Amino acid sequence: MNDMTIEPGTALTAPFIRQMVVQLRAMDSYGTYDNWSDEKVLDPMILTKERRREIPVIGDPDEVVVARIKAYYNAIAVRVEQESGLMAVPMINLSHEGFGRALVMVGKLVVIDKSLRDVHRFGFDTVEKLDTEAEKLVARALTTIEKYRAAAED
Amino acid sequence: MNDMTIEPGTALTAPFIRQMVVQLRAMDSYGTYDNWSDEKVLDPMILTKERRREIPVIGDPDEVVVARIKAYYNAIAVRVEQESGLMAVPMINLSHEGFGRALVMVGKLVVIDKSLRDVHRFGFDTVEKLDTEAEKLVARALTTIEKYRAAAED
Repeated sequence: MNDMTIEPGTALTAPFIRQMVVQLRAMDSYGTYDNWSDEKVLDPMILTKERRREIPVIGDPDEVVVARIKAYYNAIAVRVEQESGLMAVPMINLSHEGFGRALVMVGKLVVIDKSLRDVHRFGFDTVEKLDTEAEKLVARALTTIEKYRAAAED
Repeated sequence: MNDMTIEPGTALTAPFIRQMVVQLRAMDSYGTYDNWSDEKVLDPMILTKERRREIPVIGDPDEVVVARIKAYYNAIAVRVEQESGLMAVPMINLSHEGFGRALVMVGKLVVIDKSLRDVHRFGFDTVEKLDTEAEKLVARALTTIEKYRAAAED
């Protein structure tokens, strides 16, 4: 596959993007990614209009997509931890049909709670979009922690 | 199977036990339980020493056991709702090996958070034990709600 959407040499320096690459590599238990560049590891997270058109509207998520979603929420949890100094725990529930729920918990507090649907089409238009949408969730999580700090520290 | 552990005619009037029966019947999508007494529906939740001895120490949980665990936490969530007047949402995550986590959330608050293991051996010594252990979780959930009411109402 040589049709990468991320230009080789793109600076992948944003904290979330770096963490996203770390989490994707962590899911790669067979070492397939060992010789891959960060761009290549991250590339399947990007769904351009052309790529999206190739994915059926209705479909079941395969293992690879599910691993990608787990990596995404793991990376968000790590970012929440880095910014708050409190342990953040992700939890994903997915049906075989690709519906479900993603949580991130800090102490007794649910700081992220997202409904998941059509996860076989999970992806982002660009690397920037991936970063800004994730950081929006992180920022909202930090606001929730500030608001209910005692529950987050319990 | 005529080796029931719950005596026919046992009063199953405790609020949790009644809810447990409701939830078990709700899982029975094929109508198998339609002609069963409440005692018979509830009976597999009770694992006497003899029954426990017949279950291998290591094993994978089958669908029926998983449904039972879901029914248990659904019933706990309903009891929390009845007592607090706030919506309680259960969420179960289970691996194929029978390890996982059970949550009940009220608003942004995690009011029950239990590690699950060896779920193929899930059960209680007696009906009383089933009731008192569940109500202990409910009571603890209500204390947590009182402590962090704003997060629970968010």
